[in-house]
Amino acid sequence: MKNFIRSIWQNPENNKSVFVIDQRFLPFEFCEFELSSSANAVYAINEMVVRGAPLIGVTAAWGVYFAYIEALNQGLGFDFIKRKSAELVNTRPTAVDLKTSVDKMISFIQANDVSESAAKELYGLVKSIETASENQCRDIGLIGLALIEKLYSEKNETVNILTHCNAGKLATVNYGTALAPVYLAHEKGIPVHVWVDETRPRMQGAYLTAWELAEAGIEHTVIVDNAGGHLMQHHLVDLVITGADRLTINGDAANKIGTYLKALAAHDNQIPFYVAVPSSTFDFQLTDGVRQIPVEYRNDNEIKQLKALVNDKIKDVLVMSDSTNVLNPSFDVTPANYITAFITERGICSANKESLLNLFPEFAV
Amino acid sequence: MKNFIRSIWQNPENNKSVFVIDQRFLPFEFCEFELSSSANAVYAINEMVVRGAPLIGVTAAWGVYFAYIEALNQGLGFDFIKRKSAELVNTRPTAVDLKTSVDKMISFIQANDVSESAAKELYGLVKSIETASENQCRDIGLIGLALIEKLYSEKNETVNILTHCNAGKLATVNYGTALAPVYLAHEKGIPVHVWVDETRPRMQGAYLTAWELAEAGIEHTVIVDNAGGHLMQHHLVDLVITGADRLTINGDAANKIGTYLKALAAHDNQIPFYVAVPSSTFDFQLTDGVRQIPVEYRNDNEIKQLKALVNDKIKDVLVMSDSTNVLNPSFDVTPANYITAFITERGICSANKESLLNLFPEFAV
Repeated sequence: MKNFIRSIWQNPENNKSVFVIDQRFLPFEFCEFELSSSANAVYAINEMVVRGAPLIGVTAAWGVYFAYIEALNQGLGFDFIKRKSAELVNTRPTAVDLKTSVDKMISFIQANDVSESAAKELYGLVKSIETASENQCRDIGLIGLALIEKLYSEKNETVNILTHCNAGKLATVNYGTALAPVYLAHEKGIPVHVWVDETRPRMQGAYLTAWELAEAGIEHTVIVDNAGGHLMQHHLVDLVITGADRLTINGDAANKIGTYLKALAAHDNQIPFYVAVPSSTFDFQLTDGVRQIPVEYRNDNEIKQLKALVNDKIKDVLVMSDSTNVLNPSFDVTPANYITAFITERGICSANKESLLNLFPEFAV
Repeated sequence: MKNFIRSIWQNPENNKSVFVIDQRFLPFEFCEFELSSSANAVYAINEMVVRGAPLIGVTAAWGVYFAYIEALNQGLGFDFIKRKSAELVNTRPTAVDLKTSVDKMISFIQANDVSESAAKELYGLVKSIETASENQCRDIGLIGLALIEKLYSEKNETVNILTHCNAGKLATVNYGTALAPVYLAHEKGIPVHVWVDETRPRMQGAYLTAWELAEAGIEHTVIVDNAGGHLMQHHLVDLVITGADRLTINGDAANKIGTYLKALAAHDNQIPFYVAVPSSTFDFQLTDGVRQIPVEYRNDNEIKQLKALVNDKIKDVLVMSDSTNVLNPSFDVTPANYITAFITERGICSANKESLLNLFPEFAV
């Protein structure tokens, strides 16, 4: 198996393709997936070869770049690029990062000819989008690292961090959001141990977070989603860090279903509960997360079926009666009063309007 | 498939055996398991053909009865019966109901000869243990029914009840503990709907609770353990009822891992959280559940593997990498302040020493 350095990387032999990990087969198989066309990028996002808002954003930027190269080589016009870009945006109509990076690419293309020299500049742009995304995660990591360092200096033994779902390297170009502080602490030699919620229904914790932490040699233990409260009652968790999909101006955070329950348990046991959020998740038109954020109800099969290893083959198997009535809300909202603070690329801030706008005045609505 | 009336029933053709449902194959297959010897009973408890404290207690009483019949027919003495009884008790050294019913049987046997006429009386005793267990559940059901009736009279539409794990008919002779009020409400024509936590790791909600509610024609929806908090935030839960394994004198309740998280969410959303407890679960030597109740850590494979249907065959499949480090605490403790009240066979009582001893003065230590 190759070393897992970043979640998206250039073909080392030429500039004509990039690779991602095909996350559909993790943790059972490590497969690379090559992107050399806009269609590949659409497929990769649609079929969840890649997931995680930041990684999707960068993958989509590459998709636009490949559409441009296709247009250049095959004498297709700007319409082709625009059509492909629309396809990319439509894979996830609500994804902010995706739209932002596609828009950036399109703006550049509109302002330039379709030419070999513009292609080089566009290549520079997609690389800068990728680097900016990576740097944003690294900045979040550095801010969060200070929290872990402080806990370590007080405790002088392994710092136990609980996380939910996967807001790690696999969701981003590198580092992750919630896991970025963990990676940087590990790099610095601070002993850390991560409690990984398996995160039903889709098991991103057990499938992805556990896999990437194992790759990095970071100590971790997978637990069922039911177990975190018990661990907190018994002082086995020093802090919780999760990601977020969307943040309201009053500081409510929407994240993977079950995050709210962990926030309640952390609050009940006086354990700091941090949410790592790049500013791209801010949705400051909203003032009340529970009331205003519409929750997506996803497919029943995500609950009834699981990816499993059967005689060394990956299969989707039924884990309950197929006739069972199920409901599959995909995320929940953690009210601001249960959030100790946000870890952003610009610094720490409390979960309220004043602190958020103090750090990000440009987001005032 | 036979109608599922009770979880343990006499052979309709003779008095020589009883049947139970082989719960290892639910929900995928309905298999009966015949008990006609003490060895069958030991096997049934050890291998989890049956589970649930009340059902295990009654199964063990039948085990002692069959040991007695074996001793009678094969000219074996009291020592044989004692040895078999010890085997039964050792299947679950901490199970209170089991020990209580085995002790009752042994006391009778010690006070009588091994004879045909004593055998008839012993048959009467095992039947009375079974009936008493059923009646205790029915009494819990009647007490809890009043709560559901009250909610229905206020709301005048379907009452939504969330439950965790299986504290239903399959855990008892009949009715269950947490589900007894639901069965009685349904019998009375009150529209009820049950949110069934799937209850990882062993999936007793998805495998057992959903199955028995479907058998009874009671509306229900299986959700992942992460979802309950979200449903409560959105007023989709009217009350929570769970069972309990052990109750301390100050009103802390140990129950299946994850119960505590649901109690926190109920509290945060002002939703009543009831714990249905037969008095056999009282452990009034204890005064602090979180500190004093030792939590059993069970086998890793319960987390890593799941029972699934693969090409119409039931198989244990791996749902994460086999090399993953996992931890499997089997229950947690819900502190008294998050429990609205207990539903006992004698009535409702608050989660504190005074109320508990007021209703059960004989348990004063």
